[in-house]
Amino acid sequence: MALNEVLTEIDTGLDAAMERLFELLKIRSISTDPAYKSETREAAEWLVKELASLGFEAELRDTPGHPMVVAHSKGDGPRILFYGHYDVQPVDPLELWDTPPFEPQIQDTPNGKVIRGRGASDDKGQLMTFVEACRAYKAVNGELPGNLVIFLEGEEESGSPSLVPFMKDNAEELTCDLALICDTSMVSPGVPSIAGSLRGMLKDEFTLHGPRIDLHSGHYGGPALNPLREISKIIASFHDEEGRVAVEGFYEGVHEVPPEQLEAWKTCGFDEKEYLAHAGMTVAHGEKGYTTLEQQWARPTLEINGLWGGYQGAGSKTVIPAEAHCKITCRLVGDMDPAYVRKALRKHVEDRLPVDATITWDNDLDGAPASVMDTSRPEFEAARQALSDEWNREAVIVGMGGSIPIGYYFKSILGMDAMLIGFANDDDAIHSPNEKYDVKSFHKGIRSWARILDRIAK
Amino acid sequence: MALNEVLTEIDTGLDAAMERLFELLKIRSISTDPAYKSETREAAEWLVKELASLGFEAELRDTPGHPMVVAHSKGDGPRILFYGHYDVQPVDPLELWDTPPFEPQIQDTPNGKVIRGRGASDDKGQLMTFVEACRAYKAVNGELPGNLVIFLEGEEESGSPSLVPFMKDNAEELTCDLALICDTSMVSPGVPSIAGSLRGMLKDEFTLHGPRIDLHSGHYGGPALNPLREISKIIASFHDEEGRVAVEGFYEGVHEVPPEQLEAWKTCGFDEKEYLAHAGMTVAHGEKGYTTLEQQWARPTLEINGLWGGYQGAGSKTVIPAEAHCKITCRLVGDMDPAYVRKALRKHVEDRLPVDATITWDNDLDGAPASVMDTSRPEFEAARQALSDEWNREAVIVGMGGSIPIGYYFKSILGMDAMLIGFANDDDAIHSPNEKYDVKSFHKGIRSWARILDRIAK
Repeated sequence: MALNEVLTEIDTGLDAAMERLFELLKIRSISTDPAYKSETREAAEWLVKELASLGFEAELRDTPGHPMVVAHSKGDGPRILFYGHYDVQPVDPLELWDTPPFEPQIQDTPNGKVIRGRGASDDKGQLMTFVEACRAYKAVNGELPGNLVIFLEGEEESGSPSLVPFMKDNAEELTCDLALICDTSMVSPGVPSIAGSLRGMLKDEFTLHGPRIDLHSGHYGGPALNPLREISKIIASFHDEEGRVAVEGFYEGVHEVPPEQLEAWKTCGFDEKEYLAHAGMTVAHGEKGYTTLEQQWARPTLEINGLWGGYQGAGSKTVIPAEAHCKITCRLVGDMDPAYVRKALRKHVEDRLPVDATITWDNDLDGAPASVMDTSRPEFEAARQALSDEWNREAVIVGMGGSIPIGYYFKSILGMDAMLIGFANDDDAIHSPNEKYDVKSFHKGIRSWARILDRIAK
Repeated sequence: MALNEVLTEIDTGLDAAMERLFELLKIRSISTDPAYKSETREAAEWLVKELASLGFEAELRDTPGHPMVVAHSKGDGPRILFYGHYDVQPVDPLELWDTPPFEPQIQDTPNGKVIRGRGASDDKGQLMTFVEACRAYKAVNGELPGNLVIFLEGEEESGSPSLVPFMKDNAEELTCDLALICDTSMVSPGVPSIAGSLRGMLKDEFTLHGPRIDLHSGHYGGPALNPLREISKIIASFHDEEGRVAVEGFYEGVHEVPPEQLEAWKTCGFDEKEYLAHAGMTVAHGEKGYTTLEQQWARPTLEINGLWGGYQGAGSKTVIPAEAHCKITCRLVGDMDPAYVRKALRKHVEDRLPVDATITWDNDLDGAPASVMDTSRPEFEAARQALSDEWNREAVIVGMGGSIPIGYYFKSILGMDAMLIGFANDDDAIHSPNEKYDVKSFHKGIRSWARILDRIAK
């Protein structure tokens, strides 16, 4: 592989690469909302066409949910799988977007040029870094690099319900020597980062039912059970005064971070002040006694992601509503078992129900344990060197606060290790209004994959 | 006044009276939502036309908000004002209605025929009982009864912002010997009830601002301040374990109910079990140590009427939202001062704010103190006798849990006492989906007003 020529090809082809990314960003592939089912499929079809045009044997594969994209290069060398996802998060609250979420554009900012739009970073921009690296390789070498399997799903933002069955049904085709995953961020801008661990996630949701019907707060205010008050009391009981989760058994399987790892994290480039300031905070609000990085990477959480009931419109309404609703996610670490945590959480809630109230749970929400990577594999060292070359800065092995259960599934179902390398930044506002991806991330991301493939395909 | 002929006229004209009520019910006069501004005006215009057709000098009077309807009969006798409101509550959650809210219909139920639709009871059905009594009187006697002023507003469900300025500007025209108000319910089906007291109301709303932007719960879960958790803690702090409001100074001006009044309430026909069962409750959930009737009529409340933040759509979203919102109303009794309570409430909230969080208050929401009626006036005895005749049951003087600040304004601005008599039932689902008004309430309500006018117009 003529690495330098490939890197030059990437540099000269950057504008065209961004044009292609924009085509993909314009497709509103919101997987969690059934209203966008056909557009989610459209994104998969776009990718199949794109990959086929590069010489991959590319196919759209139907599932009971959104389709998978699977593509093979069928060259020589170690068999490497690349994973990404083409679905995106919902865009609400829409009124907080400065530009329409699905009309991507390049914008100048004080920190350089960015690609603005839903999915620019998570994960369309990131997955296209790999595709564009393959394109440049082919342009220089006349053929695709090595023996690749590209595997893209469209349900990552909605819990990947079809992923496990699909992996089980296609285990032989998908099992490779190693999986590469591009869906993570750099610990700090310009610091290339490889994930050593990822938190798992448990999702749950409940409705607290109180009065039989919505009540008038004049006729019933006083004697009435108010579900909004009761759900608030339950949520308030989830944490103690130290910010620790107060659900009995919650911390089972949580391990303290070894001192040497804590030491290494001190010099990994994480800018605590900037991290907090980006969110408009002056202090970390998590468990007392743990550093901000530990709270983010190594401690479990119980967060409320949605809470609602009663009247939300203009003016006021003197109602005591019949119901209140709450969406919860827990981030899991170490050996925490999602099923056990779910049981403990539900018991905690049900133990606090007043008389005349009932609970219904959403039983369609999944969970996955944390992933801890085997960083002793030679590909980690190869990638570390490749990234250090590209970014002129020592690459670091970090923890990750997010949850990408795919790493866990690759290991548990296919027996395949995964290496997670991503070029997002913490200010990309993924899952938020005004999502962006730095042009630098996109450009150097493509170059990084070219360098990594150059080393691990050997 | 030939009372028996008027009552017969009411009986034979009932179907036509319901047809007219249906016309009014079809007009979507939701005052709190600006989207229904023109339809709210349409309801006022309909009433002006209707009253004018009966021989009233009727006018629509513009205000900065929704218009008033003022009509005069200009006959002899004591000057009596009748008050009602033609606006209605919002209809959400719409999906819980069994029939479209603005397509009224007569339905058979195990408890008799009902008129189903938004406003059927509150307050279009009730105000039309008075209008129809006037119509029957005129049909028999050839002229309208006595010296009436009919005064209908269109902002009762949105805090009556134009009411006080309008009353001040038109004090001479509106000041009568007594005001009649039909916007209350009977203590129990078939038990005619006159209100001796009404609770006041204070409205407030706040937004708790946490992170600068919506955050990803993977990147920020742990260190992030979660506004949904914080607002829940604040709401949970509003009441103590005994169900008592824990806001300092809240109970200033609250008086205990005199023992003789408590004794009288024991035989007023209130069916506690039925009242609770209607709401799907087995016990009263208010302040410990007080009867259900005291909790409803004589104790103040702090209720959450709306609570929201984060993601409410299908599936899950791993967001830590930037904001959380809360709508509050307090019911006031005795001499509680709305301004003082508002200050105490806001201090309670602001004292509990964590670092990095801020609060913004909605400063457009009003308040009014409780009303205590002068039940020693002779009109109260006259009405008690008229109602007892119509309903074949001793009429009772009761407390009321609702808030109709108009009574307070009539007294404080115009120096005019008010008498509140209504024919609604507690299961009318006012402010809720599937609102109804018993045909019996409508029919006997019209007859009741004919009897009352017969006695107090003499």
